Amino acid sequence: MGRRERKKQAVRDKISEETIALIRRQGVDGATVEAICERADIAKKTFYNYYGSRHELMIEICDSKILVLNQELVEAALGSGKPLEEQLTFMFDQMKSNYTHADHLEKELIDYMVCNFPNHRSQGVNQLNFMNKWYTRLYEHNVARLKPSLTPDFCAEVTVAMVNGLTLNWLNDEQYNIEDRLDKLKCYLIDSFLVKPVME
Amino acid sequence: MGRRERKKQAVRDKISEETIALIRRQGVDGATVEAICERADIAKKTFYNYYGSRHELMIEICDSKILVLNQELVEAALGSGKPLEEQLTFMFDQMKSNYTHADHLEKELIDYMVCNFPNHRSQGVNQLNFMNKWYTRLYEHNVARLKPSLTPDFCAEVTVAMVNGLTLNWLNDEQYNIEDRLDKLKCYLIDSFLVKPVME
Repeated sequence: MGRRERKKQAVRDKISEETIALIRRQGVDGATVEAICERADIAKKTFYNYYGSRHELMIEICDSKILVLNQELVEAALGSGKPLEEQLTFMFDQMKSNYTHADHLEKELIDYMVCNFPNHRSQGVNQLNFMNKWYTRLYEHNVARLKPSLTPDFCAEVTVAMVNGLTLNWLNDEQYNIEDRLDKLKCYLIDSFLVKPVME
Repeated sequence: MGRRERKKQAVRDKISEETIALIRRQGVDGATVEAICERADIAKKTFYNYYGSRHELMIEICDSKILVLNQELVEAALGSGKPLEEQLTFMFDQMKSNYTHADHLEKELIDYMVCNFPNHRSQGVNQLNFMNKWYTRLYEHNVARLKPSLTPDFCAEVTVAMVNGLTLNWLNDEQYNIEDRLDKLKCYLIDSFLVKPVME
């Protein structure tokens, strides 16, 4: 990367960082282009050299902060080389821990993704497809451990639907115990997807 | 019901019928208040005596045409007095048949409900709660048939998340084979929720 590209990347990173800081403090609505430019110390014109719209920036942040976690979890699980039970346990424990430590930022970003869905349908579909792709990969690598009646893509679709369903309930209900639900979901998936070891 | 009330109900029914006819022919966007009033042969002012907004009418139609099916299916299943396997088979076969015969109307209404969610969050939450309530009732009545590790509310949450997840994929993908997916989901739920009969 040449000096020019490095400089460009530095501005991009600065915009992204300051936007995240603003969302954390004031929510997505508080992260206006004006406020972002002031904190990043750039002109509005400069902002639009980097992002076509505020929405484009928001989606980049949602993708990098929320969506990419699915990829990271699957890659880490597969990289461990452990049996599928342990891979799923690892992934759901990580998700649980993410929710336990989630602050205003995560909720704001997930809310933004949900609200964005109707008006930017193809982006929402891409996000769902991204999740499906990584879970399909997880189950394809472990296909020998799945019950013979199940296919990797069905297991992926079910997992994504349930993780998203729980997330939606968490978003809508302050009292919702997502950690407890993720624990139950983990046990349910292991029990319902996997062939029992022969000794049982 | 007095004459006055009967007359009022007749106007309400007429508005609803004509709106449904318009959606079927021209989609939700084609069902403008102007077009509805013209077909129902009423003044715009009369329309607003019956509905606070076009949106209120749309939600009433979505609830009566789509959402209430969940209640009807659960009530019919419970009323049959058959074992849970057969109740679930009945419900999923009915859902399959609804999708097979679904026309423009169903897709338009489901799309409207999805698009409505961000801007009318509490309505969307009520719709999810309605589905959860009826599925919880289904599993509560059959709790003796569920695996001991599962609770009726967890089974309901999982069922609703999966049915909605499949519906969303159907909405977004012209090629999506929802009948096949509902079949797979039916088998999966029966296998994963129910205690196996003792003879096995």
